[in-house]
Amino acid sequence: MYYGEQTSNAIPNLTGKVVVVPIGSLEQHGHHLPLLTDSLIGGEIVRRAEAELGDLAVFLPMLWAGASDHHLGLPGAVSVSNDHYTHLLMDIVESLIKHGFRRILLLNSHGGNGGPGGNALYQVQLKHAAERDLFLVLGSWFSLAAPQIAQIEALEQKAVTHACELETSMILSTRPELVRLADARGAHFHYDSAFWTPDSSGPSRVQVVRMFHQYTRTGALGYPEKATAEKGEALYTVATREVVALIREMAGWQPVEPN
Amino acid sequence: MYYGEQTSNAIPNLTGKVVVVPIGSLEQHGHHLPLLTDSLIGGEIVRRAEAELGDLAVFLPMLWAGASDHHLGLPGAVSVSNDHYTHLLMDIVESLIKHGFRRILLLNSHGGNGGPGGNALYQVQLKHAAERDLFLVLGSWFSLAAPQIAQIEALEQKAVTHACELETSMILSTRPELVRLADARGAHFHYDSAFWTPDSSGPSRVQVVRMFHQYTRTGALGYPEKATAEKGEALYTVATREVVALIREMAGWQPVEPN
Amino acid sequence: MYYGEQTSNAIPNLTGKVVVVPIGSLEQHGHHLPLLTDSLIGGEIVRRAEAELGDLAVFLPMLWAGASDHHLGLPGAVSVSNDHYTHLLMDIVESLIKHGFRRILLLNSHGGNGGPGGNALYQVQLKHAAERDLFLVLGSWFSLAAPQIAQIEALEQKAVTHACELETSMILSTRPELVRLADARGAHFHYDSAFWTPDSSGPSRVQVVRMFHQYTRTGALGYPEKATAEKGEALYTVATREVVALIREMAGWQPVEPN
Amino acid sequence: MYYGEQTSNAIPNLTGKVVVVPIGSLEQHGHHLPLLTDSLIGGEIVRRAEAELGDLAVFLPMLWAGASDHHLGLPGAVSVSNDHYTHLLMDIVESLIKHGFRRILLLNSHGGNGGPGGNALYQVQLKHAAERDLFLVLGSWFSLAAPQIAQIEALEQKAVTHACELETSMILSTRPELVRLADARGAHFHYDSAFWTPDSSGPSRVQVVRMFHQYTRTGALGYPEKATAEKGEALYTVATREVVALIREMAGWQPVEPN
Amino acid sequence: MYYGEQTSNAIPNLTGKVVVVPIGSLEQHGHHLPLLTDSLIGGEIVRRAEAELGDLAVFLPMLWAGASDHHLGLPGAVSVSNDHYTHLLMDIVESLIKHGFRRILLLNSHGGNGGPGGNALYQVQLKHAAERDLFLVLGSWFSLAAPQIAQIEALEQKAVTHACELETSMILSTRPELVRLADARGAHFHYDSAFWTPDSSGPSRVQVVRMFHQYTRTGALGYPEKATAEKGEALYTVATREVVALIREMAGWQPVEPN
Amino acid sequence: MYYGEQTSNAIPNLTGKVVVVPIGSLEQHGHHLPLLTDSLIGGEIVRRAEAELGDLAVFLPMLWAGASDHHLGLPGAVSVSNDHYTHLLMDIVESLIKHGFRRILLLNSHGGNGGPGGNALYQVQLKHAAERDLFLVLGSWFSLAAPQIAQIEALEQKAVTHACELETSMILSTRPELVRLADARGAHFHYDSAFWTPDSSGPSRVQVVRMFHQYTRTGALGYPEKATAEKGEALYTVATREVVALIREMAGWQPVEPN
Repeated sequence: MYYGEQTSNAIPNLTGKVVVVPIGSLEQHGHHLPLLTDSLIGGEIVRRAEAELGDLAVFLPMLWAGASDHHLGLPGAVSVSNDHYTHLLMDIVESLIKHGFRRILLLNSHGGNGGPGGNALYQVQLKHAAERDLFLVLGSWFSLAAPQIAQIEALEQKAVTHACELETSMILSTRPELVRLADARGAHFHYDSAFWTPDSSGPSRVQVVRMFHQYTRTGALGYPEKATAEKGEALYTVATREVVALIREMAGWQPVEPN
Repeated sequence: MYYGEQTSNAIPNLTGKVVVVPIGSLEQHGHHLPLLTDSLIGGEIVRRAEAELGDLAVFLPMLWAGASDHHLGLPGAVSVSNDHYTHLLMDIVESLIKHGFRRILLLNSHGGNGGPGGNALYQVQLKHAAERDLFLVLGSWFSLAAPQIAQIEALEQKAVTHACELETSMILSTRPELVRLADARGAHFHYDSAFWTPDSSGPSRVQVVRMFHQYTRTGALGYPEKATAEKGEALYTVATREVVALIREMAGWQPVEPN
Repeated sequence: MYYGEQTSNAIPNLTGKVVVVPIGSLEQHGHHLPLLTDSLIGGEIVRRAEAELGDLAVFLPMLWAGASDHHLGLPGAVSVSNDHYTHLLMDIVESLIKHGFRRILLLNSHGGNGGPGGNALYQVQLKHAAERDLFLVLGSWFSLAAPQIAQIEALEQKAVTHACELETSMILSTRPELVRLADARGAHFHYDSAFWTPDSSGPSRVQVVRMFHQYTRTGALGYPEKATAEKGEALYTVATREVVALIREMAGWQPVEPN
Repeated sequence: MYYGEQTSNAIPNLTGKVVVVPIGSLEQHGHHLPLLTDSLIGGEIVRRAEAELGDLAVFLPMLWAGASDHHLGLPGAVSVSNDHYTHLLMDIVESLIKHGFRRILLLNSHGGNGGPGGNALYQVQLKHAAERDLFLVLGSWFSLAAPQIAQIEALEQKAVTHACELETSMILSTRPELVRLADARGAHFHYDSAFWTPDSSGPSRVQVVRMFHQYTRTGALGYPEKATAEKGEALYTVATREVVALIREMAGWQPVEPN
Repeated sequence: MYYGEQTSNAIPNLTGKVVVVPIGSLEQHGHHLPLLTDSLIGGEIVRRAEAELGDLAVFLPMLWAGASDHHLGLPGAVSVSNDHYTHLLMDIVESLIKHGFRRILLLNSHGGNGGPGGNALYQVQLKHAAERDLFLVLGSWFSLAAPQIAQIEALEQKAVTHACELETSMILSTRPELVRLADARGAHFHYDSAFWTPDSSGPSRVQVVRMFHQYTRTGALGYPEKATAEKGEALYTVATREVVALIREMAGWQPVEPN
Repeated sequence: MYYGEQTSNAIPNLTGKVVVVPIGSLEQHGHHLPLLTDSLIGGEIVRRAEAELGDLAVFLPMLWAGASDHHLGLPGAVSVSNDHYTHLLMDIVESLIKHGFRRILLLNSHGGNGGPGGNALYQVQLKHAAERDLFLVLGSWFSLAAPQIAQIEALEQKAVTHACELETSMILSTRPELVRLADARGAHFHYDSAFWTPDSSGPSRVQVVRMFHQYTRTGALGYPEKATAEKGEALYTVATREVVALIREMAGWQPVEPN
């Protein structure tokens, strides 16, 4: 069910449910994907998950504003700085706590939101240190479904990066009219380091902070030209399944007993 | 046209247009209207205006997060504090300026956003004091169409307050399934003052700061039970007409020559 | 009576009264009026109101510091930024609440203080949401006496703008030695808009944020050369009458009962 | 001359002068002195210094708002917190620098303003590190005239504390109608420490942070009952003489040549 | 070489080197390890790395202050809040950039510093977006040596958690007199979740924000009683080797060419 | 005893003791002293005081980060801005108060820390206004031992300035290998002022804010070439004696009874 469709007096009866805050972004996604890509993907996952869960969870509207300052070197990003995004999310989560919600999920579809999202939940949690039944959770669909994504055979790239095979496939599957596949070109290169993979095609053991325009001319990474709508559908399927599973599980979480 | 559907490389060609940032809220609207009322109304006006304007303006997605702390005494508001909302809007507007936009309209559909919205534009303007071609505009549909609204004969109440005859009519017209008209009950009362009208049924010559739960038990004001879908349609018509007229006018604004 | 003349141990006996915080500014007022104009006008209204009210209200000293960043493009403004001014006023109001005052009036004589003044009271009110007997009021003399000003026949301009016929008349009436009427020249021009009147000679339906140097070379608006001391006296008379009426009314305000 | 009496177009011709920002406070001063004591004393010194200096310096109006949070435990203080006061003073000083002033004196008459005043000037100076001709000075009359005060034979107490013999004498000299000498009673006691003198009757080698209500029941320190108007006049005389000397000296200060 | 031992005039000749900022913490580490554990471990790694690297890198002193608010529910943590820690690190890194350093490594030994550390570098990087030769790196020894740690056969637990087998072994190896092994008892439990492992004994696919006292009575996790000095020495060996390798590699990093 | 060597469960038994937070800096000290000078001196005083006091006080590790923005015009300072340093110290002191400590000494060895240190304690104290047994103390060794230093006959300069005879002597006494005495050259000059002594060789009656590079080419003041290890030892002796005396005294301080 959708939070925004409820009336004020209905809210006190819903506070036992998991409440979901979908957060996305509006930022460059190469020359071939729409700026709203992350929010569109997140929105589609929410649509599917809500349909499966019915009254078991309450979904807020997609917050399209995200923390994308590292994309501001290329055209298009409408970005909230990390500190302001943290404060925005804190206010949202504190509002929900004030009304009585105890199981709150930030359902994220943009990598850059992870830092401020975690920081926001951390600071809210500190203010409620004595409330053992409060569960504040940050879940990014691409992380919580990462093992399942890695097992999709059709994919050449096994993890989400940016404007890549995977994101392109997902928009192709639901909003194909917005994709200019002919213009898709992602950056990929070898960098001789044992610790750092600048194009995100592999793991990094240290964090090297850089902006997107310092890596890629189009703004995309990887091999978006290999995208297909079928791969996109497969991704939505596993992402939705894991999100639904998480929410069902969260609905039953009990406080940990310290030992 | 919609900003979020464009690709990054299309943006530099659009910066001469008026760019519109629709801002709404998610907050209590009595026992009979959905929490998302303001954003739904704003979204419908955007939908109509975009259809009329075509490529003449670029619309960002509706930002449902609004400054509604004065509604937190009743259930439902997911609110951003005034200062954090100011920062959020500043970041959004600065992002657009960075990409080259010069005619920026915050199209507002929630009263509480007026203060932080004006403050945000003010602070951004100060940083760009030397740029005479920059137009930062805050327009609330209920203010910019106020004279036209006052002339709609069918309306008993001639100005928008909260969860009132007018807002209820508008949701009835487009999302009737979300209205529980039987539960509609607005606060109205006489307060013996020459300077202040607490229920907003008339003008105030001073600003008296109060929260909604200090006035009204349901959260609504006025006579929502008098709402009809026809009144709603009439309101959308004049609101859209004025918003379209404003945007067309803004597209041609030239810098004032000091004299 | 004046707050600053009381001793510490007298304060607990005064907290039932209306306490008034006069706020002004120090900023350019054209080539013909002193920088302190707004504070001088506010101070004269306070002097007259205090004389009428005697022990019925307690007046703080005039706070000459105001929020005038939009005047910084011309010489003279000593301005506090909006956010800092909000914090300053919050601290002042919280101090008064801490000592027990419940009826607090920010008596404003500078347009730019309205935004941060309202924001300050709003944020303080949120912290005292449970105290139904607390009245936080922002009253600008030019707004609370606007209907009465509009009825002064001698005036050509029926509302206060900046360094205009009205303000010039008021300084002429009380501090004529500070007025260089020969240098008075105000900006006025026609701007072809249905929504916006840049020289404030008429209403605006949207807020367009601009700085003063972007409109006017001298810093003045309207027709200050039409000022006379008699008009000034008439303005002080109606302004003082309305301020006194407001304070007397506030002294009797009772909490609204939500319905 | 007074800054507030100048017109905007006069300011560019005054920027070579020393500009003085008098800062005071509004806070408890025992049961016998008015809350505005510090601002009244500072204002009288300004009045005398301006009369002597004529066009050699430009004086802003007295800023009565001060940093007095340590007095909030007793009735009356209208205080600005340290951080907000720092920001307020920074905005004031930056405004003056923007208009061209290079020799700026914060002329202080309240002890609690010293910390935030110094911090404000420090932070402004850092932003102007390359401007060698900028002189930002914090001078408290009771410090800059301390050696001269110590030589006034009539005084029993040789340095200013709070609502003490000295401050009481000064108000007795200029505003005797505001002094309730019969109610004067100051705290004084022996505390057995080699490092700390809680009642400020002697030096401290460490800073022990405490609030006034933790020391004194009336809010006063020392022996205010020994005050006389003659002592007050003597204090004004030496304070004014030193302030005038400082300003004259500042008018001729040249940048230090690093060696 | 050590930064703190250099004189001011030596610094300009060192700016081509990698500069290392070791950051630790001071917080509860169970009943058996000293509060300074993370800083002691980090300090020992620095000591060994500096000895190997000689003049190839410049090490600042260990900053013992860390972001440990999640430990404040148990005795001992002296913690800096996330936002303040971010600002502290930003100031440190900006100071180094100002002096000319271009290759800056935050060498971290406390898990809670990761969020604010990454945020600090991100915000500094944004301010220097045009400087392609600037490398801002956050490396936690337990992450950058994670693959090597996992291969130490003697260890039962293959990754660092808190006050666990690994940390206990490291303190046993260098400061055995500070370990009360008899009091070592770590929390470990099964929590039935596919997404979350509260005791950090396995991976989590979502971030669930909790404080330490909500999990563990002593403050320790895992099986500290299995610690030995030999395991500690093995850990120091691999950690130092990887830190040294990273610094050597960083010394040669070239800017990525966007493609 | 050292705080960092204690285990978490030991802390509740130590909260009756004086807890000491040593704060230093890392900044230019001329061409002849190491950047870490202030922290080295403070650390040596701590080492000696701890040895004398044993279990009577608990010492945190030296915090080398200090507020040195006024040194940033010369190479080397790693500085925290005043506001951020205030917040850092507030978090540290609040952590200690949370764990139960009531007698807290910031033991300072860097002049620039005085302002933010005092501000931090002030703001913490305000939050604990009702706790009469809380003692928050800022003690700089060069101030609390100033009378004793002035009596050391061998010294030519009788008070500490910067990288001067005294500081140089102290580093010579304990870390002679870090001193390049041949490069020692301090700025000293006559400035014709009755109120201000730029080179700190005498008192100032006003505060003139300037950065170090505006006074001195090397960064040093005074006559460092007159330093000897013997003078350094004498300084450590008196500094330690006074610090020990202060801590012993603080251990017995009782709340002041207001009178």
